[in-house]
Amino acid sequence: MLPQFRVSLNEAVNVSGDDLKNTVAGIFVKMGVPQEDALIGADALVLADLRGVDSHGVSNMLKSYVNGYTSGQINPKPDMKIIRETPATASLDSDRGLGVITTPRAMELAIKKAKDVGVGMVTLGNARHLGMASYHAMMALEHDMIGVCMTSAPPRTVPTFGAEPRLGTNPIAVAVPAKNDHPFVFDAATSSVAQNKIEIARRLGAKLEPGWLATEDGTPIMEEMDVPENYHLLPMGATRELGSHKGYGLSCVVDILAGVLTGFGYGAVPGRPNFGHYVAAYNISGFDEPEHFKASMDEWMQMMKSTKPAPGEERVMVAGQPEAEMEVIRRRDGIPLHPEVADWIRDTCAELSVDCPF
Amino acid sequence: MLPQFRVSLNEAVNVSGDDLKNTVAGIFVKMGVPQEDALIGADALVLADLRGVDSHGVSNMLKSYVNGYTSGQINPKPDMKIIRETPATASLDSDRGLGVITTPRAMELAIKKAKDVGVGMVTLGNARHLGMASYHAMMALEHDMIGVCMTSAPPRTVPTFGAEPRLGTNPIAVAVPAKNDHPFVFDAATSSVAQNKIEIARRLGAKLEPGWLATEDGTPIMEEMDVPENYHLLPMGATRELGSHKGYGLSCVVDILAGVLTGFGYGAVPGRPNFGHYVAAYNISGFDEPEHFKASMDEWMQMMKSTKPAPGEERVMVAGQPEAEMEVIRRRDGIPLHPEVADWIRDTCAELSVDCPF
Repeated sequence: MLPQFRVSLNEAVNVSGDDLKNTVAGIFVKMGVPQEDALIGADALVLADLRGVDSHGVSNMLKSYVNGYTSGQINPKPDMKIIRETPATASLDSDRGLGVITTPRAMELAIKKAKDVGVGMVTLGNARHLGMASYHAMMALEHDMIGVCMTSAPPRTVPTFGAEPRLGTNPIAVAVPAKNDHPFVFDAATSSVAQNKIEIARRLGAKLEPGWLATEDGTPIMEEMDVPENYHLLPMGATRELGSHKGYGLSCVVDILAGVLTGFGYGAVPGRPNFGHYVAAYNISGFDEPEHFKASMDEWMQMMKSTKPAPGEERVMVAGQPEAEMEVIRRRDGIPLHPEVADWIRDTCAELSVDCPF
Repeated sequence: MLPQFRVSLNEAVNVSGDDLKNTVAGIFVKMGVPQEDALIGADALVLADLRGVDSHGVSNMLKSYVNGYTSGQINPKPDMKIIRETPATASLDSDRGLGVITTPRAMELAIKKAKDVGVGMVTLGNARHLGMASYHAMMALEHDMIGVCMTSAPPRTVPTFGAEPRLGTNPIAVAVPAKNDHPFVFDAATSSVAQNKIEIARRLGAKLEPGWLATEDGTPIMEEMDVPENYHLLPMGATRELGSHKGYGLSCVVDILAGVLTGFGYGAVPGRPNFGHYVAAYNISGFDEPEHFKASMDEWMQMMKSTKPAPGEERVMVAGQPEAEMEVIRRRDGIPLHPEVADWIRDTCAELSVDCPF
């Protein structure tokens, strides 16, 4: 079983999504971010919390963003520039803006291009942290488009057979609309596991699963154990025999599309701006009648969900389903914040003179 | 270690790539395929052999294609039709043509669109077997483009927690040009392992690695053992703990883009045409100066290849490197055919009155 990472509901401070969004937007504004941008950033962070993706929500990310603005690493008022453009493509210099906020702008451009010519594909160089990749991909859904998002992050993952980290967690997100069912939303690191989960496991004293990490010399750790002091992430697949060359190869694809292709370098370039992003929108009407496609997606998802489970398993799920189910619960019951996180938000609000409704 | 699947060089019949190509083209022509198409098909099959991808080369695939033409399953003279089109997209009805031959036509269209508007993306419905996915993706390279290819194949892979196969091996190929180095060429099934490898392991009496297969009831087989009589493939990642939800999710992405999006159904639809394909070309000049990009790719590949190896490992490689190295050897020394395969080709040539130079 996977360790249970969520905060116990007994001790949690429950906050409604709207309240949390206003508070976070207020904090962004105090960092010098324009109001409209602050609302975009808050929406992205809170949607991660609402969907149960706590690793990329307010509790896990806001503090580092505040630190980034305060230290000058992140530019609150980036002057985004289009460096190159064709009807279907563009590359942007995002001027050290936070990816959580700049990437939706890039996705809007991709969607506009997909409306005009069928596909839009935009890279962002000189960028900062992306947030939840699927937030940006999901922007395509209401336009009857398929959305894609990737990010090339600083190196933490060893290549297959390697002893040194050369690749980030390099996630891939793909969002596809359905008709009556929830959308298909795939969003996963191409590393074995997200860095955040390791550090949460360390804090909780949970055991590592085999295949999650490599020792400092690059040897895959294939037994259950405590989180070691020093480690590297493995590519998805863990070992060559289990297919780590596939995870490694996909991570390279992300590093190329969201790194090299931006023209601003890639994850392992020392001193380069830390992140590069890639978004794309595919207009479904360029391939099929959107209503027919979305009805087919309903049928396809039902086919997948109705798969007979293996012994000991409850049900087969589809990407985006656990998040859609969690979103229903948290929109109704609120987002459970760890008391320490709630305290940090309260303190930060007090310091910055931002209203805090909890 | 992975089992050694290649035919022993002592017993092999060595054939030059050009000789094999002429022979294969001759066989395609006797199946009713027009000369120009026959040469495309032969080129694709023989390139797989030259690159050491024996699973998708002449020895492993030609027989099934001949059977498909003979039984009427594959149409030798397909009337390909564009069903929908925008400047960047098209969907094609490939009229039961062999994907090995029809997909290069679709890729030509994608490349033309990428020249015009920056990106080209084309789906093929009503299709037959794709061959080696990277063949089609690699067509983009000489145009300073990034090529992508995927195929939605008949179900053999169980979803995570599932007991019934719902997805094909659903490979993803991505080809990226470099300046002086070989191109980056990723080409991998999103299942744990290719079906062909299992059957070759059975023939050779080799042991299965843990994480390659599920038993008939969907339970992942996590110990070394002989190939069982009945089995399903697992998604890349093998178990939920090792990340099979990521392999499963990526396989779904392929099933959607190369299946649902074609408008002709997906892998698990009973009685549907068996395969759907997806190709795309991204024009590098829509993002960056191509010469700058390709020089950066050289640098990026050198960075990856120079990674210090983990204990017991010889070197870190990059996707496309083993194939590029094998291509040098086989273009010089010829393609080693298993004697039984050489016999089958000789017999088939005799039967069809095709010249056989070996």
